Amino acid sequence: MTAGADRACLIDGDRLLRRLQALGEVGATGDGGVCRLALTDADREGRDLVSGWMRELGLRVCIDLIGNVVGVWDAEGGDGLVLTGSHIDTVACGGLYDGNLGVLAGLEAIESLREAGFRPTRSLGVAFFTNEEGARFSPDMLGSLVFADQLSVEDALVTRAIDGPLLGAELERAGYAGCERFSIDTLKAFVELHIEQGPILEAVQSPIGVVLGVQGIHWLEVEFIGEARHAGTTPMAMRRDAGAAAFALAAGVANLAKRVGGDQLATVGRVVLEPNLVNVVARRATMTVDLRNTDGDLLRCAAAEVADLALSIAEASGLGLEIRTLVDLDPVVFDPAVVDLVREEAHHLGLSTYDLPSGAGHDAQILARVCPAGMIFVPSAGGISHNPREHTDARELVQGAEVLTSVLRRLAA
Amino acid sequence: MTAGADRACLIDGDRLLRRLQALGEVGATGDGGVCRLALTDADREGRDLVSGWMRELGLRVCIDLIGNVVGVWDAEGGDGLVLTGSHIDTVACGGLYDGNLGVLAGLEAIESLREAGFRPTRSLGVAFFTNEEGARFSPDMLGSLVFADQLSVEDALVTRAIDGPLLGAELERAGYAGCERFSIDTLKAFVELHIEQGPILEAVQSPIGVVLGVQGIHWLEVEFIGEARHAGTTPMAMRRDAGAAAFALAAGVANLAKRVGGDQLATVGRVVLEPNLVNVVARRATMTVDLRNTDGDLLRCAAAEVADLALSIAEASGLGLEIRTLVDLDPVVFDPAVVDLVREEAHHLGLSTYDLPSGAGHDAQILARVCPAGMIFVPSAGGISHNPREHTDARELVQGAEVLTSVLRRLAA
Repeated sequence: MTAGADRACLIDGDRLLRRLQALGEVGATGDGGVCRLALTDADREGRDLVSGWMRELGLRVCIDLIGNVVGVWDAEGGDGLVLTGSHIDTVACGGLYDGNLGVLAGLEAIESLREAGFRPTRSLGVAFFTNEEGARFSPDMLGSLVFADQLSVEDALVTRAIDGPLLGAELERAGYAGCERFSIDTLKAFVELHIEQGPILEAVQSPIGVVLGVQGIHWLEVEFIGEARHAGTTPMAMRRDAGAAAFALAAGVANLAKRVGGDQLATVGRVVLEPNLVNVVARRATMTVDLRNTDGDLLRCAAAEVADLALSIAEASGLGLEIRTLVDLDPVVFDPAVVDLVREEAHHLGLSTYDLPSGAGHDAQILARVCPAGMIFVPSAGGISHNPREHTDARELVQGAEVLTSVLRRLAA
Repeated sequence: MTAGADRACLIDGDRLLRRLQALGEVGATGDGGVCRLALTDADREGRDLVSGWMRELGLRVCIDLIGNVVGVWDAEGGDGLVLTGSHIDTVACGGLYDGNLGVLAGLEAIESLREAGFRPTRSLGVAFFTNEEGARFSPDMLGSLVFADQLSVEDALVTRAIDGPLLGAELERAGYAGCERFSIDTLKAFVELHIEQGPILEAVQSPIGVVLGVQGIHWLEVEFIGEARHAGTTPMAMRRDAGAAAFALAAGVANLAKRVGGDQLATVGRVVLEPNLVNVVARRATMTVDLRNTDGDLLRCAAAEVADLALSIAEASGLGLEIRTLVDLDPVVFDPAVVDLVREEAHHLGLSTYDLPSGAGHDAQILARVCPAGMIFVPSAGGISHNPREHTDARELVQGAEVLTSVLRRLAA
């Protein structure tokens, strides 16, 4: 099997798997999962480990003002930079591969290409971006937004964590407040390897997903302000119950997803009541609504409908209302040349592919605004992600890294 | 105005008001409110203050195994004990008078009766009971349940606080793990003065509420167990969303209250999602349902209906389900002789009265199981309670204490 033999030569799969395990031990939750919320102590430890590997490899390690880290293999007289990478922050109940695979496969690609005597005509870089998950600071993909000049570093630094501190202070504390500024003009391409985090590749039994684009994302934070009342003595008609309003809106969000159907996703993942006690009518309820669709028009309609429903619920119950848009990202279509290259290189390696959109947000969709970009997916067992049981077979992890290596070699040649 | 002159002589109103203010400074939240959750440091400080006043007054201070504190004025050769009192723990956003009024008015009644040369033929006691609110430990009225032999002290001591520790350990830490056991056989009567915590007395412009009984209470804790999933990649049909189930049940609870109407109250005051993040489908949702009705049959039907709805929601979404009954108290009817005595003594003092049931749970409903019991209400401005803006006019506080004093004098004579 010639294709299999070719693949075996391209990278050191065991080295990649060892690094994935080693990084997974940082912030391990003991149940197979990982918690490295952005810029916590665990994230700092993960950053130290990965940037240490970059230095061991002799890469030039650059840290920008928002803590994005890029390890660069400079080409002699090189013509611009071909970049790969992803993120190493996780959600509170994350797995081993979300983000980490793209960063460590990029590192492995560079190491293998150097060992194989490859001489790039363009510099090759591997990056990890700050706060991709958005689980501790909002918006998500914050680091790549700053990297691609889509968000000012000043605004990003004053973002407040869900547990209180400002991002700038946490960046200083972690020792990752760098001073470099990248010039996006030198970027020739960005390619990101990532686990699918969904059930499609497993269902179609394809080891490689060719990612056509990313669905649009709209995050709302809705806050109802009512009045704390004794649950036993206040007649139902005299209540201004912020909790009941939040539940009604959440039920409306579930109905909306059913009614719109198709690719429409709608999730209420976070609700906080105040004072959150069994016998007190809630004076305040804060909730998030996560809306996603590959169709930008439908997504905008859904967001407007949620806001209208929140307004009508608040008016009917005499409640105060605040609605904040936390994230508003249009659907993204990746560069056709990069998309074709991913498909082509996978086929060269004897791997079948399946074209699909990304259900999750990724740094690549931000980079796509400033350079040709694309993504490679590998399967997620059971479609499970953001969960300690997140799993991709070792063979599939290595296959994805091989396709990435092959694509980077073409882009940097 | 003879009645007014009589009232002025009965107690020292200013002394009562000063003590209410002093106790309100313990655990003050800075917004006019108080936070003395049961057996926290603030509650300990409040206990020290009030039991100190009992000792200054020369009362015999008894502390039982669950931390209930009773100050006793022993009658010479007395025939049993007439008890008054309430609680001094508060909810997280409590006010100055809920519970505290009943305890400090009882203290004032005893002090005034002694100063006036009254010689009781029965001992007179003033009590504060542990964890009446149920805001930190479940069930509420835990202290009076143990006092009245309705709950074993062993079970009560291993109750876990919402913030983690066991009640027994917190009781030791606070220094209120006493060793006395009260004999309920000596109890001749229990009378509790309390703010109404509802809007009725204000609406009918009556200074004194004659409390006929207490509505029944049923508290459920419902836990849905699903699976944490990525909110962007998991098709709606493949989710097992514990949060969505909780919102659907909460919406059903709101509909139930509307449909049953009448005296039916239904509140979802507490919801906790796990992991409670914007882009993760919740793997677990824990919520409480507080149901109350003066009609015991309707209350039981409502509780069964909520449990049935939770089951059907869990089954439809493939979720695990646990339902725990935290509190199940039938409606209570107070002793007719005590109820009549309250009305009679108020009228003797020239105060108009209004007969009503209690909307909230009170220690008196537990004591009613073991001795003749009754309650006196004073108005709550705007019906507001469990809120820093809880307010009763000074004149009304004093009038309530005078009625209590007058009733105790009759019961102990």
